[in-house]
Amino acid sequence: MEAHQKSLFSLEVCFTPALFSDIMTAPPFYVVVVDILRASTSICAAFHYGVKEIIPVSRLEEARSLKSQGYLVAAERDGQILDFADMGNSAFDFMKKEVKGKSVVYSTTNGTQAIMQAANLGQVVIGAFSNISVLVDWLISQKGSVVILCAGWKGKFNLEDAFFAGALAERLLHSGAFIKECDTASAAISIWNEGKSDPLAYMEQALHRKRLIRLGLDDVIPYSFQIDTAPVLPVMQRGSLINIA
Amino acid sequence: MEAHQKSLFSLEVCFTPALFSDIMTAPPFYVVVVDILRASTSICAAFHYGVKEIIPVSRLEEARSLKSQGYLVAAERDGQILDFADMGNSAFDFMKKEVKGKSVVYSTTNGTQAIMQAANLGQVVIGAFSNISVLVDWLISQKGSVVILCAGWKGKFNLEDAFFAGALAERLLHSGAFIKECDTASAAISIWNEGKSDPLAYMEQALHRKRLIRLGLDDVIPYSFQIDTAPVLPVMQRGSLINIA
Repeated sequence: MEAHQKSLFSLEVCFTPALFSDIMTAPPFYVVVVDILRASTSICAAFHYGVKEIIPVSRLEEARSLKSQGYLVAAERDGQILDFADMGNSAFDFMKKEVKGKSVVYSTTNGTQAIMQAANLGQVVIGAFSNISVLVDWLISQKGSVVILCAGWKGKFNLEDAFFAGALAERLLHSGAFIKECDTASAAISIWNEGKSDPLAYMEQALHRKRLIRLGLDDVIPYSFQIDTAPVLPVMQRGSLINIA
Repeated sequence: MEAHQKSLFSLEVCFTPALFSDIMTAPPFYVVVVDILRASTSICAAFHYGVKEIIPVSRLEEARSLKSQGYLVAAERDGQILDFADMGNSAFDFMKKEVKGKSVVYSTTNGTQAIMQAANLGQVVIGAFSNISVLVDWLISQKGSVVILCAGWKGKFNLEDAFFAGALAERLLHSGAFIKECDTASAAISIWNEGKSDPLAYMEQALHRKRLIRLGLDDVIPYSFQIDTAPVLPVMQRGSLINIA
């Protein structure tokens, strides 16, 4: 018998923002927002390239207004960059020296809405394959419950976000500091197990990937599944995302 | 090249009734209602033992009133049989000769609500491991789109219903008559693949199973994962379920 029993924190996966009201974990908790083929991978890339802060806005009018005030604006709907924006929502759009030290206004189809919704219930942190190791270490050190919130696609379940949720859940459970709050973590880990030996082959069935191919935006997919290419920790503070790594 | 191209029907999985409004398949479609550890396995058992019809009601007052009119009533909440009911929601409750030829009023925590919701959008049919083969053959013969609706647990995702959805989706896709409408079918098949070699071992992580054990109601679990023990086809017609097999 161990002299000191470790306290265990709750771990839950929410497959779409539409199910966020049904989560069982008691607030406050850490909310890991996941939008692998777009926002979360792009936000990590942006901070890795030196962006100072990212201001998520859900309404396009607000993004347009901030653009006229001199902000850099990243904005897309349904995968397409908008006419008034400086960049779209591909991680590659942020990999340039012009972004260094800048504040970026950010508005996308799924990711920003998930971030805003999550911010009401806990500390938001952005998760992607590109920052998974630093994210896992940080979450373990925080000693609190964790909800992994998949952004999905327009309220729907998507495969790539659930796949990442499984990768993250497996690592967190392996630490011994967490217990599963519901069946979603078990399901996500099964999805991860089925695809982890060859993520790109597994993702060939994902509908979002097909959407991106149709729009000619699929070049970023291999990057989106690479591990630890952007070891940053984007967290929400007073309405903006900043990097605390 | 084939002389005649087969037309393909849409196949979609809905992981909880809370996501039913987000389904992408255009109605009308066939809705397979799934509540493996309770309602769908029990309903199939009931018809296999000769029940004439099952009348799903969601409100308990209605179930109580029909009991006073002489109906047999199966009613539970949170896994517990209610005091005025003749039986609860275990498949074993229906495996007796007294049910033969009877009309049974049925009210449960998750299953009946899913059935009522589904009935608004398409032809409801009940799916379980116990009727999977006859169900697959029938769905293929119907030549229409299929949505597999997991009852879940109080609006939440559950593992056993997603697991069955994967088993059913795999068989339907294997027929060549269906295409996946969204990522949920892919995810369900991954869950099925992870657990199919030993369903009972895989289900040890399911929370609903733990709930049933706590209530002393877990004796029915092995039966719930056996294939083709009740080759019936419960479909909804004019507010009641009847067996058309």
